[in-house]
Amino acid sequence: MNVGVVGASGYTGIELIKILINHPIFNINYVATSTGDTELDILHPSLKDVFSCSVEKADTKEIEKRCELVFLALPHQASMGFAKDLINNGVKIVDLSADYRLELETYEKHYCPHEDKEHLSQAVYGLPELYREDIKKSSLVANPGCYPTASILGLIPFTKYIDENFPIFIDAKSGVSGAGKKCNESTHYISINENIFAYKVLNHRHEPEIKEKLFQQSSKDFDINFVPHLIPATRGELIDAYMLLNEDIDPIAVLKEFYKDEPFVRIFDKPVDIKSCSGTNFCDIYAQKKGNKLYVNSAVDNILRGSSSQAVANANLMCGLDEDLALPIIAYVP
Amino acid sequence: MNVGVVGASGYTGIELIKILINHPIFNINYVATSTGDTELDILHPSLKDVFSCSVEKADTKEIEKRCELVFLALPHQASMGFAKDLINNGVKIVDLSADYRLELETYEKHYCPHEDKEHLSQAVYGLPELYREDIKKSSLVANPGCYPTASILGLIPFTKYIDENFPIFIDAKSGVSGAGKKCNESTHYISINENIFAYKVLNHRHEPEIKEKLFQQSSKDFDINFVPHLIPATRGELIDAYMLLNEDIDPIAVLKEFYKDEPFVRIFDKPVDIKSCSGTNFCDIYAQKKGNKLYVNSAVDNILRGSSSQAVANANLMCGLDEDLALPIIAYVP
Amino acid sequence: MNVGVVGASGYTGIELIKILINHPIFNINYVATSTGDTELDILHPSLKDVFSCSVEKADTKEIEKRCELVFLALPHQASMGFAKDLINNGVKIVDLSADYRLELETYEKHYCPHEDKEHLSQAVYGLPELYREDIKKSSLVANPGCYPTASILGLIPFTKYIDENFPIFIDAKSGVSGAGKKCNESTHYISINENIFAYKVLNHRHEPEIKEKLFQQSSKDFDINFVPHLIPATRGELIDAYMLLNEDIDPIAVLKEFYKDEPFVRIFDKPVDIKSCSGTNFCDIYAQKKGNKLYVNSAVDNILRGSSSQAVANANLMCGLDEDLALPIIAYVP
Amino acid sequence: MNVGVVGASGYTGIELIKILINHPIFNINYVATSTGDTELDILHPSLKDVFSCSVEKADTKEIEKRCELVFLALPHQASMGFAKDLINNGVKIVDLSADYRLELETYEKHYCPHEDKEHLSQAVYGLPELYREDIKKSSLVANPGCYPTASILGLIPFTKYIDENFPIFIDAKSGVSGAGKKCNESTHYISINENIFAYKVLNHRHEPEIKEKLFQQSSKDFDINFVPHLIPATRGELIDAYMLLNEDIDPIAVLKEFYKDEPFVRIFDKPVDIKSCSGTNFCDIYAQKKGNKLYVNSAVDNILRGSSSQAVANANLMCGLDEDLALPIIAYVP
Repeated sequence: MNVGVVGASGYTGIELIKILINHPIFNINYVATSTGDTELDILHPSLKDVFSCSVEKADTKEIEKRCELVFLALPHQASMGFAKDLINNGVKIVDLSADYRLELETYEKHYCPHEDKEHLSQAVYGLPELYREDIKKSSLVANPGCYPTASILGLIPFTKYIDENFPIFIDAKSGVSGAGKKCNESTHYISINENIFAYKVLNHRHEPEIKEKLFQQSSKDFDINFVPHLIPATRGELIDAYMLLNEDIDPIAVLKEFYKDEPFVRIFDKPVDIKSCSGTNFCDIYAQKKGNKLYVNSAVDNILRGSSSQAVANANLMCGLDEDLALPIIAYVP
Repeated sequence: MNVGVVGASGYTGIELIKILINHPIFNINYVATSTGDTELDILHPSLKDVFSCSVEKADTKEIEKRCELVFLALPHQASMGFAKDLINNGVKIVDLSADYRLELETYEKHYCPHEDKEHLSQAVYGLPELYREDIKKSSLVANPGCYPTASILGLIPFTKYIDENFPIFIDAKSGVSGAGKKCNESTHYISINENIFAYKVLNHRHEPEIKEKLFQQSSKDFDINFVPHLIPATRGELIDAYMLLNEDIDPIAVLKEFYKDEPFVRIFDKPVDIKSCSGTNFCDIYAQKKGNKLYVNSAVDNILRGSSSQAVANANLMCGLDEDLALPIIAYVP
Repeated sequence: MNVGVVGASGYTGIELIKILINHPIFNINYVATSTGDTELDILHPSLKDVFSCSVEKADTKEIEKRCELVFLALPHQASMGFAKDLINNGVKIVDLSADYRLELETYEKHYCPHEDKEHLSQAVYGLPELYREDIKKSSLVANPGCYPTASILGLIPFTKYIDENFPIFIDAKSGVSGAGKKCNESTHYISINENIFAYKVLNHRHEPEIKEKLFQQSSKDFDINFVPHLIPATRGELIDAYMLLNEDIDPIAVLKEFYKDEPFVRIFDKPVDIKSCSGTNFCDIYAQKKGNKLYVNSAVDNILRGSSSQAVANANLMCGLDEDLALPIIAYVP
Repeated sequence: MNVGVVGASGYTGIELIKILINHPIFNINYVATSTGDTELDILHPSLKDVFSCSVEKADTKEIEKRCELVFLALPHQASMGFAKDLINNGVKIVDLSADYRLELETYEKHYCPHEDKEHLSQAVYGLPELYREDIKKSSLVANPGCYPTASILGLIPFTKYIDENFPIFIDAKSGVSGAGKKCNESTHYISINENIFAYKVLNHRHEPEIKEKLFQQSSKDFDINFVPHLIPATRGELIDAYMLLNEDIDPIAVLKEFYKDEPFVRIFDKPVDIKSCSGTNFCDIYAQKKGNKLYVNSAVDNILRGSSSQAVANANLMCGLDEDLALPIIAYVP
């Protein structure tokens, strides 16, 4: 089955391709960037003698001709430009941008005017644990943000026990790949090596995404307060969430029950680390309470479960394949 | 004026010595470890051709003979063993362990039975911004823990505005030097490089220390919930604290007013990082509110302001010297 | 086909298991350490919910019963103790230690008295590019050291052009995993983070290994001078070799011709880095000359091509399988 | 005595200022960049509440008015533009660029046409151990490159024993600060973290600088072959040099004798590391021989001894002050 990757130059694009190379059903039949005109192994030398193909300038007509499904690894706004036409021409889409993740109001408040309202309402949020059946029926899946993936998977089992009269505080830490491939002051080695700092404090676009999905799932309008940090690591993302309980529970038991049939969520009985899930599609979760305070601790690989491997999981489901086809499960580091 | 350092082999010991080498008044007249029998520049090769002396086996009689003031950089419990006799013989003490930081009950609940109750009650908590006048009069100062230093300095200006009916959540991050010089699984390079994880969740001994001091200062019995993390950096410590306000304030204005005369606290109007204060005695603080939620963000060098340079500040005050003598103020990294 | 891994607790052991989990023919039927009595996913938490089995105390009788081939990931000397009996009982062996790599004299000069002289002479050096046909026929393969793998693959194409009247200098750099899982002063995070240093200067046991194999292949007795360094990275190994030419050549052309049919050697026309081959079985090579000086630059993942993935390649060959079965070829980092 | 710093935005500029802040004689009376129009503590937030002043647009007239000595921390070519006029107007200059380091021919071959031939011939190479007396008399000192500083100090004691019929190979490793503050592909965190690679192989401009100075000092025209690497560290530089001896010597004895009166060179009897001299003006050196092969191993802090602290040492000498005034001697890390 022929698939395409648009936006192959970034970290999510290359990770997508690395997974698709080993996919037993999907065949990479189209690779593009905004500029095109190069070869894949020139863009990503680590692929030399492994896999290459020409990288073209993104073009909807070509995509329609050559792909049954396409992964859009583009900046928000650029994405909906492509998606609009493609859907109308029957190409399935997994969109890794934010363009189809949020309800119209939320989107336009935090991003920009939406240019494809028609399809926005049909889009499904690509978090398999919560939207699996809808994803299977959908031809437009909005791949979740990295922070929302780890945050929502950590919080959702507890929504009915969380006291909504008090805020939820989420302290998040991300490896530098989360800041993208562009060179700037905060991705300069000297800026982040031997350092850690918060950014976009209580003002990150993933905050409304978390809030909206928790509401859709629980009908509780939680007061989410999100503070992300950059840490000196290439990849990986750790979430520490703090809240109040309205009922006495055993957090680990709640997690184990909620995720007992889920293949890509692991429940640990000690705090999680980012190393143990780096390189995999797993979301690792731990939780602990003290009196009526609940602490939830989750970890994902920000560019795999937080982006590219989750995108492939969604594509698998959209095409009636086993969800786990080609998804990485073995961590990089012992 | 002759001073001594007992416990010269660890990170706090060597940092103490590095500061004392440049001190205009204090003269390093005694250096000891539990084993002794070596030279300082063998223990710390970076001091080769800079400063050395023989490192002796710690002995109270020798300390009394040769030092007017001694820094005890020893594990808790070991420390009170030495302190007891020394005080009775008129040696001033800055104790870097936890032995004299807490009230008897708190100490024995979280550490071990106290063996020097007599002097415990006389000891002063060595956080100059809050206990300066007492420190000046004291001959036994308990140097604060690294996490409490950054946490208390961040929170104290807000105590009267914090809603004590809601918990305070503190998410802390520390460089590996905080885990000590001993080799173990979590200080092995492979364990922490490219990684981050929480430890001693809601169960770290610095939690009661923070709670007790905030109560002493504000008479408010805050519900402190403390979660420390280890990060892949040699030094530095970042605190992110989350709480509710009972009154509308301008957090930056509150901080600037509270610390307007303090030479070693810097107020930033953007989130702080650990790099900008690494190598210094500064505590850098930022705060931000959203509705009635308050976010406080502070940073220190865990082995300087969080330990050794603060110890020298205390010694300066105890000896009637200017507080800032020999204290480092220029960060390592541009 | 049932295989075993003895020495599962170290880095090479876990990397072996990670590869074997995905092997289409080999079935992990026995996992042991010197102490045993645990579960694999307790020893290596990152394998939780992925793959586990009981880890037994290493026992030759059990190995013979349950394995057609066994990987010995043990310290030298320990290894030959097991190998001796196993070979006599028809178990194929890939030995990751140094015990069967060298000729008797060389081994006993640099290691210890050899306790299995009988089989030493039959052992084949497991560098497929040079000994492939012998490996296919062998039932005892000595897996090369990490430094020799990258050094020999870099130098061997040039042996006939290298002036043997002058020394060859090899300046090597290794990630910390090369120093093993044991905690000691040089694997402590603080010792190697932000640092680099040489060790075992002109005195590393891999020096005679490189020298001996180059002689076996070229009949030239090169004067090898080897200086290894530890660098602040988890894995990866870079070799920089310096020598004189006795003939004018095009180094890149020589490399491309020599390795034109080799699937696991990549020739680059710019200096190689360790990131592009980390996570793979590739050895990446670059070379450049200036007058009669030759510079050779090669890189491997020290625990994969330098150990575990090369061990699987050898096992594949010994069992008449395709050499590349289950070998990793996609780098971790984009 | 009033001094100025032109080029305050880069790493060498800020390190210069950090040293000058504590200088007992020099007074920072002028700070400039190519653009100006800012404050020093805005350019370098770590200086907040420590030291600040307005940063002006570099202007020779202003420099002449306000400075007796100026440090030019500018790119090559830009530097000579300023120097020309300043010297003629009696301002002493320490130039941190390459513009006055080399003889005319060498300079124009490797850099660009020289625009100040008149003063080039008067310039003194600012390596105090070799040119101290000339520096004292000079008003234009060319501060050495970082690699030449460590390489020349390591090699110079051995020149009379080195076989000049054989090349000298220098394998150098530098922290990322050596690559400058500009963001580009190789300073991006993801590019160099967990990585190491050679660059400008046998083609770096510091190679002719090393060669020329060794010739000036020894009248031996050595064949220098220089290969620099970037390593994942903020600062520090390690040199490993390989050569042949024409005479049997005790390398450590030679080093100790040659540097017996030098305050800023330390001779170690084991391999040096970059951590032990990071933050200082020391050059640490070790050497070892094997037969007629000589291995020389030296380390410096690339932006201090390799640039800014050496520049202050030169300024001290030019002004008749003690060479060691304000020079840092205590390493950052224990």
